[in-house]
Amino acid sequence: MHPNDPALKSFVPGADDSGFPIQNLPYGVFRTPADDKPRVGVRIGEHVLDLKVLEHAGHFEDLFGDTHVFCKWGLNRFMSLGAEAWTNARQRISELLRADNGTLRDNAALREQALVPLEAAHMLLPAEIGDYTDFYSSKQHAYNVGCMFRDPKNALLPNWLWIPVGYHGRASSIVPSGTPVRRPRGQTKADDAEAPTFGPSRLLDFELEMGFFTGPGNTLGEPITIESAERQIFGVTLVNDWSARDIQKWEYVPLGPFLAKNFATTVSPWVTPRAALEPFRTTGPEQDPQPLEYLRIPESKRDGAPAAGWTYDIKLEVALQTEKQREPFVISRSNFKHLYWTMAQQLAHHTVNGCNLRPGDLLASGTISGPTPDSYGSMLELAWRGERPIQLPSGEERKFIQDGDTVIMRAYCEGPAYRLDLGECVGRIM
Amino acid sequence: MHPNDPALKSFVPGADDSGFPIQNLPYGVFRTPADDKPRVGVRIGEHVLDLKVLEHAGHFEDLFGDTHVFCKWGLNRFMSLGAEAWTNARQRISELLRADNGTLRDNAALREQALVPLEAAHMLLPAEIGDYTDFYSSKQHAYNVGCMFRDPKNALLPNWLWIPVGYHGRASSIVPSGTPVRRPRGQTKADDAEAPTFGPSRLLDFELEMGFFTGPGNTLGEPITIESAERQIFGVTLVNDWSARDIQKWEYVPLGPFLAKNFATTVSPWVTPRAALEPFRTTGPEQDPQPLEYLRIPESKRDGAPAAGWTYDIKLEVALQTEKQREPFVISRSNFKHLYWTMAQQLAHHTVNGCNLRPGDLLASGTISGPTPDSYGSMLELAWRGERPIQLPSGEERKFIQDGDTVIMRAYCEGPAYRLDLGECVGRIM
Repeated sequence: MHPNDPALKSFVPGADDSGFPIQNLPYGVFRTPADDKPRVGVRIGEHVLDLKVLEHAGHFEDLFGDTHVFCKWGLNRFMSLGAEAWTNARQRISELLRADNGTLRDNAALREQALVPLEAAHMLLPAEIGDYTDFYSSKQHAYNVGCMFRDPKNALLPNWLWIPVGYHGRASSIVPSGTPVRRPRGQTKADDAEAPTFGPSRLLDFELEMGFFTGPGNTLGEPITIESAERQIFGVTLVNDWSARDIQKWEYVPLGPFLAKNFATTVSPWVTPRAALEPFRTTGPEQDPQPLEYLRIPESKRDGAPAAGWTYDIKLEVALQTEKQREPFVISRSNFKHLYWTMAQQLAHHTVNGCNLRPGDLLASGTISGPTPDSYGSMLELAWRGERPIQLPSGEERKFIQDGDTVIMRAYCEGPAYRLDLGECVGRIM
Repeated sequence: MHPNDPALKSFVPGADDSGFPIQNLPYGVFRTPADDKPRVGVRIGEHVLDLKVLEHAGHFEDLFGDTHVFCKWGLNRFMSLGAEAWTNARQRISELLRADNGTLRDNAALREQALVPLEAAHMLLPAEIGDYTDFYSSKQHAYNVGCMFRDPKNALLPNWLWIPVGYHGRASSIVPSGTPVRRPRGQTKADDAEAPTFGPSRLLDFELEMGFFTGPGNTLGEPITIESAERQIFGVTLVNDWSARDIQKWEYVPLGPFLAKNFATTVSPWVTPRAALEPFRTTGPEQDPQPLEYLRIPESKRDGAPAAGWTYDIKLEVALQTEKQREPFVISRSNFKHLYWTMAQQLAHHTVNGCNLRPGDLLASGTISGPTPDSYGSMLELAWRGERPIQLPSGEERKFIQDGDTVIMRAYCEGPAYRLDLGECVGRIM
C-alpha cells in the first residue's frame, strides 16, 4: 500500500486520530535521557520512532547497506541520498508501523527500544544547516510593506514580479522550537534625530514562514532546472523569522537586513517529507507577467495557464500567549498556497547562476500573508505599523511583541480521512 | 625568542629570503598524492610543514594532550581552542623550524615526512566555513559606488558612518585560489526595457577584499565586546568577492545582493595568523562622527583621538592576465589600512544583537579602495563604470572581466628585516 493511503492504520496507540498519523511520518533529530547521542527519529502519534534502533536491528540494510544514515547528528546524510532513497525509507517506515504488520508490533523488546514517548525526546535542529536562504515570496506581504514604507501606487518594486527575491540569512542562529529568544539590542534612528542611538529593539516582530530542506544539491556551476527542482525538496518545516523592525529600518540600505534578523530564527523540529504533502497539492496564484523561461513551471510552459498543483494547501496559524493571556490566542490564519513563487521556482532561481546547494540547506519562503487583514503573517502588518493594535481577550493590546510574550506558529493539512500536523514553532521573548 | 623576532632564521632552505619566512607561518589545509586525507599544514618558504605528522610524533602533546587538532579537514578545531592555544602552537612551530634547533632539522626521517614540497601539496579551503559575512567597510568604495549610482553630493548613505554595514554571503560557493569560475547567467534589465532578459552576465567584476576567520566565538545572545574582539580573530586571508554588476543592479532592492555574488567567492588557501601581523599595526582613517560606545575602540574611548594601532599595513595588488597579456599586469595597488571600520569593530557590531559566531566563520572586509583612482578595488571603479577603460600593455582594454581573463590578487607586509606574503587569490573566468 502507498504510504499516503487513507486506509492505512498504525498499531501505535492514538496515532490514527492524531495529527501525526501513519500518513505523516515527519523526520526529526532527538536525544533522550537514556541515550544522549542525537539521532534521527520519525514522529508517530505521541511517540518518536528511533530510526537508529531500527538501523542497528538491520531494518534498512537492504536499502542502505551498512552505511549509517540515521545514527547521525542531523538529517544531512539521509537528505544527501536523494528522492529514491527517501521514497524507499518512507515505504519501509510505513510498513513497520502498520497495524497489520507484526515485525515491530509483536516484538516487545524492539518496540520498547524503538518507540520513545514524546515527552522523553529532547528535540534538536533537524539538520546541520550549511546555508540558510530567505525569500520574499508572498505578494501580499511585499505589497503591504511597500504600502507602509513607500507608496500604495508603487508598492511592489519593479523586480518583484520577475524575480523570487531572496537573500542569505544566518545559519548559526537558527534554533529549534522552544528555545527562548533574547530581545536584540542595536542601533536605531528616529526620522527626526540627528544621530542613531543604541538600545533594545522596541519593534520586535515575528514573520510566519515555511521553509524546505534541500536534498543532494548541485555541483557549483551547474544549475538545477525547474523540471528537476522538486526532486531536490526533502521536506518542509515551519519558520519564525524574528525581525527587529527598528533596527532593520536603519541598517538595511543598501545590502539588506542583517542584525535585524540574525539574532534568532526559530524552526519546527519536525520536517514533513514532501511525499506526505502530495495529497494536498493545489494551485497557486496566477503569475502575471509570465515568468522567464527558466522559472516557468512545466504545465504553464505548455498552455500559458496558471500552473496547477505546484503548491500545497497548508493551513497556518499564529497564536500569541502573554503573561495575562495564558490561553494562546490566534491572531492570524494564513495558508502556504498564498505564496506567489513556488518552492521549485525558488530553487531554480537560486541555482540558475550556478550557486551550489548542499544537503541540509534551508530555503525559507518569506512572510506568508494571505489576502485579508486577519491572514497577514507579521505583527507589522496585522497591527498595520501600530495603527491598529491587536486586541487580546485578556484586555491587553499589542503593536509589537513584548517581553514575556510567546509566539506559537502551527501548520496543518486537512484531508477527508486524516489531518497532518506540521509541528509547532514556539518562541518566548526574554 | 618571540616568533616575530626579526633575528630568527629557519633551517628550511630559501625560507628566510622568501615571503614565507619563519615570522609568517600561515596555516592551510592540504592533501598530497601520497596521502589523500586533508590535514593542516604551515607554509615555510617553498614547503608545507605537515602538522599531522608532527602531531602524530607527539610534538603538540604537552599543549593539546591526545586531542587531534591538525589531523582534520579544516582549521575549525584549532580555531575553536582560542588565542592562548594559537600562541602556544605558533611558538612551538617556530621553535621546530628554527635554524638553531636540531629536533626537526637533524631528524632526517621526520623531516622527510613533515616537510612537503609546495608543488606536491594540493591546497583546499582552510576551514569548513559555517557562515560567511561580507562587510562594506571602505569609505572610498562606498563613496565611489554612491557617486556612480546616486549623487556625488549624497554619495554616502546616512547609516554608513555609524554602522559597519554588512550582509550575509554564501558559504557553499567559497572556493580556494586557483578554482576556475564560471561566468554566471541571470536576469538583467536595461533601464529603458519593459521586461528583464536572461543570459550570461556582461558586467562581471572582482572585488579586492580581505577576510578574517573567527576563533571560539560566542554563545547566542551574548555579544563579543570591542575590548575582547581581537582575541577572536584567528587570522586573515585574501578574498575575491566576484560580482555580476548587471545582475546585482536588477535584483538587489530591497534585500541586497544575492545571485550577483553567490556564484563564487575565491579565497587564498593561507591564513596568516593575527600574531604574525603584529609588527605591521598602524593607524586607520579618522572616524568622524565618533562611533557609538559599543564600537568605540579602547584608545579612542580615553582621549577621543583617532585610534592608533587598530588596523594593519597590508599592501594589496590586483593583476590581470588575459590570453594576449600573458604577463600579469597590475591594475590596482591598495592597502588594508584604508578600511574605515576595523576588524574589531566589525566583530563587535556583528554580535551586539546576540548573533553567535562559530569557529571558522569568515568575515570579509568589502572592497578595499584606496584614495586614488589607481588604488580602487574593483573594475567598476577602476574603469569608472566603463567610462575609463583599463589599458593593458598587450593593447587590449577592459571595462569588465572577459572570458579567459585571470584575476590575481596578492597581499604582503614589508618590514625592515623581512617580508610576509599573504598568499595569492587567483581565479580564471570560464
